[in-house]
Amino acid sequence: MKTRCWVNGNEQEFISAQDRGLQYGDGVFETMAVIDGEVRRLAQHLDRLERGCAGLGIHCPPRDTLFNECAWSAARANASVLNRAVLKLIVTRGVGERGYRVREGALPRRVVSLHPWPHHPPSWSEEGVVVRWCSLNLSAQPLLAGIKHLNRLENVLARREWSDADIAEGLLCDTHGQVIGGTASNLFLIVGDELVTPRLVRCGVAGTMRSAVLDLAHERRLTADLGLHVSERDVLRAELETAREVFLTNALIGIWPVRQVGERTLTVGSVTRRLQGLLFAT
Amino acid sequence: MKTRCWVNGNEQEFISAQDRGLQYGDGVFETMAVIDGEVRRLAQHLDRLERGCAGLGIHCPPRDTLFNECAWSAARANASVLNRAVLKLIVTRGVGERGYRVREGALPRRVVSLHPWPHHPPSWSEEGVVVRWCSLNLSAQPLLAGIKHLNRLENVLARREWSDADIAEGLLCDTHGQVIGGTASNLFLIVGDELVTPRLVRCGVAGTMRSAVLDLAHERRLTADLGLHVSERDVLRAELETAREVFLTNALIGIWPVRQVGERTLTVGSVTRRLQGLLFAT
Repeated sequence: MKTRCWVNGNEQEFISAQDRGLQYGDGVFETMAVIDGEVRRLAQHLDRLERGCAGLGIHCPPRDTLFNECAWSAARANASVLNRAVLKLIVTRGVGERGYRVREGALPRRVVSLHPWPHHPPSWSEEGVVVRWCSLNLSAQPLLAGIKHLNRLENVLARREWSDADIAEGLLCDTHGQVIGGTASNLFLIVGDELVTPRLVRCGVAGTMRSAVLDLAHERRLTADLGLHVSERDVLRAELETAREVFLTNALIGIWPVRQVGERTLTVGSVTRRLQGLLFAT
Repeated sequence: MKTRCWVNGNEQEFISAQDRGLQYGDGVFETMAVIDGEVRRLAQHLDRLERGCAGLGIHCPPRDTLFNECAWSAARANASVLNRAVLKLIVTRGVGERGYRVREGALPRRVVSLHPWPHHPPSWSEEGVVVRWCSLNLSAQPLLAGIKHLNRLENVLARREWSDADIAEGLLCDTHGQVIGGTASNLFLIVGDELVTPRLVRCGVAGTMRSAVLDLAHERRLTADLGLHVSERDVLRAELETAREVFLTNALIGIWPVRQVGERTLTVGSVTRRLQGLLFAT
């Protein structure tokens, strides 16, 4: 399928070169799964987008507008792989005068685009993935932590560290040596009787699939069933060496079990399998 | 004057919404002074742009192309304020597929734009400026330090901390409590017998005017004349309380003496005046 793009509701390939999204990365985005013409977890994506806009002081466009534009565009997906496509929504602060200062009256801009579903081997969901450690350390900026903003050079540089197509993802620590997650995914571990994911108060993106897993673990009393409790806390790199299970999440992949981290190999565990099944059903 | 814009040499207002400059802030830029139709310190700006591209792994467009496009556009400046205008050059990694991964063959994109000269009170150069401390702390990312890249949300957020038009600039520390500079300028201090500017190994942008001042201080033996030596080193916030002179630099303002930092007032000193005169003459 060919990429299609709508700017403020009009189908067009271009945006103003004076948009602050280009000039300064001054905006936020969402990457969403479209299955059979419908956006998965659209409400949750818009919730996060609104929180991101609030964090940056961008007047988020009306939720109805965003919801309708995303749903309408997704319905146009001429999806080629398993009836799946990717919908990306960007909201920028809009066109402004040159300079960092934000003038009153800038009109935020909406960019909705449809993209082909990525070609990942099906075995990655079933048998798990191989991941590596990135040498880049994520910088700590509490004011931007958790937000899926357009300043993504750290992710780009980290993703440039490897080209081996058999390595699915790279794991990142922050400058304090705490594990944060993958370049484009969140990380979960089963350590002892804990289902753990790194807390994202200094850096990282709080993914919608991360939230979905946390919600499931709480709501479904999965943790009680399995004798686990759920934690968002600092995670040391050494814990990847002892974790019983490790998996990655994002809106497109759902859950990928990790079968190898650096030199260590793991088997796909029962909690990971159970969460995959529950997520698939929701 | 109206903003004019050229993309890859063609006069147009728009760029592809799929450009990685918008998608990820994946690019670098320069902001240059145009005086009487000529770009000031164009060679130095292109030097820094090339270093930034190298740091990000972007294939920088040929220097001749960049040089000629900037010079040609600057000559088109219908400058209204003192025959001055601002030329901005952006180089992005170009259009790519969705996702952080950089594919081979992406063609970097050049965006050259002409803007009106900012309306700063002339007294700011002569009598000095009032600056404040920002509460935002710059994050530490050695891989991006010094580079004028398109991930500028920290600068945008810091600039949103104040709206008082009498405050010319905000000063920023990093998360280690070291002073880095202004939101859009570099900082110099005279402390004892040192001409000091913060070293920029963890964050900050290494400005072309900062380099010009450092070059002048070395070449012209200004420091020997005045019994000063030049240092790029860590600067503690407390040193702003004891510095004899403080000034700010960037490509548009040249040198602004600082006459007030927070509660402390300063007088414009002889080193600042001398450097202003020497810069004006170069």
